[in-house]
Amino acid sequence: MAIVQKTLSITTHQRGTQNITSIIDDLVKNAGIQTGLCHVFIQHTSASLIITENADPTVCSDIETWMQHHILDADPKYRHDYEGDDDMSGHLRTIMTDTSHSIPITNGRLNLGIWQGLFLYEHRTGSFERTLVVTIQGE
Amino acid sequence: MAIVQKTLSITTHQRGTQNITSIIDDLVKNAGIQTGLCHVFIQHTSASLIITENADPTVCSDIETWMQHHILDADPKYRHDYEGDDDMSGHLRTIMTDTSHSIPITNGRLNLGIWQGLFLYEHRTGSFERTLVVTIQGE
Amino acid sequence: MAIVQKTLSITTHQRGTQNITSIIDDLVKNAGIQTGLCHVFIQHTSASLIITENADPTVCSDIETWMQHHILDADPKYRHDYEGDDDMSGHLRTIMTDTSHSIPITNGRLNLGIWQGLFLYEHRTGSFERTLVVTIQGE
Repeated sequence: MAIVQKTLSITTHQRGTQNITSIIDDLVKNAGIQTGLCHVFIQHTSASLIITENADPTVCSDIETWMQHHILDADPKYRHDYEGDDDMSGHLRTIMTDTSHSIPITNGRLNLGIWQGLFLYEHRTGSFERTLVVTIQGE
Repeated sequence: MAIVQKTLSITTHQRGTQNITSIIDDLVKNAGIQTGLCHVFIQHTSASLIITENADPTVCSDIETWMQHHILDADPKYRHDYEGDDDMSGHLRTIMTDTSHSIPITNGRLNLGIWQGLFLYEHRTGSFERTLVVTIQGE
Repeated sequence: MAIVQKTLSITTHQRGTQNITSIIDDLVKNAGIQTGLCHVFIQHTSASLIITENADPTVCSDIETWMQHHILDADPKYRHDYEGDDDMSGHLRTIMTDTSHSIPITNGRLNLGIWQGLFLYEHRTGSFERTLVVTIQGE
């Protein structure tokens, strides 16, 4: 068994998703591990990771639509709003989705289903530098 | 440390949950790992995995009730509906629950709490063949 | 690669969150693993784990506010209510948040973002003894 850990930085440009599957799959390919797990962790509380359908971009825009209707920005019931209308909604969206995902590695590559993609989901309305810690282990 | 990976296929027959705890626990028992982690990953974007109460079947039916009221089928706000009324709601239910679970292995078996069960949750209204990748590691 | 597993018990006193970051970080420090993953698993179906903002306590109280408005206690649509008004809502809150988290270990410590904390989230309104299984692996 071996373990490889990498840190990477991704710039987001607006609220919404960014497909990062090929970036992570390249790290896995270079790690030289044939059978194992790839753990991707985002070090933030207003941006998260989701695995969803990778073919039709309306899937991700419909997810954003659901979020905007069920986790309101600037909800007067929230007390935490130091960073603006998207501050508390960003934290709530993050805990309702995922801070990390573990994906199986098989034959040296991410073993996702044919329609699955891994997306970084920015929940703030601006542009941010987001840090991921990727831990790849196996043999 | 050792690692064992298995792929298995489960047929779902309708929208709802199926208790797969004993299937996964049997894989763990046969892997011969005493202390470690069992990672179960579903390779789909309209079916997910949940850990919930394993004794009373009304728990899972109440979860389904909540889903039907909060993640509407055929919501006119959704644009992604190629596969029907349960297409986009299936993707949303999946990201609100889990694509994978990691469960501790202790004394060669899944170390779940007494009331915990692992369930495959089919979010489409039909019957599907669902693929799981199970990665067991430890010593 | 090495693996260390510990079980710990935490008493909750009311519905809400409890920051357990330093408890888990101490286990990691004592495990002597420099690079790896720390998996924290809660053996219950009415209490969960979340990673969220660790600085302002109104974040966690706003999360609780959202939960009370979107996952109603004593909802007449629920059939499962053996243990009271917070029984089924506790199960729903648990599946909407997380039963486990895996956190990277770097230089022998939890490698969380500067604003991230790990919290045990009690969803029942009383006081309970909650069991966590912590599995630390790496090298």
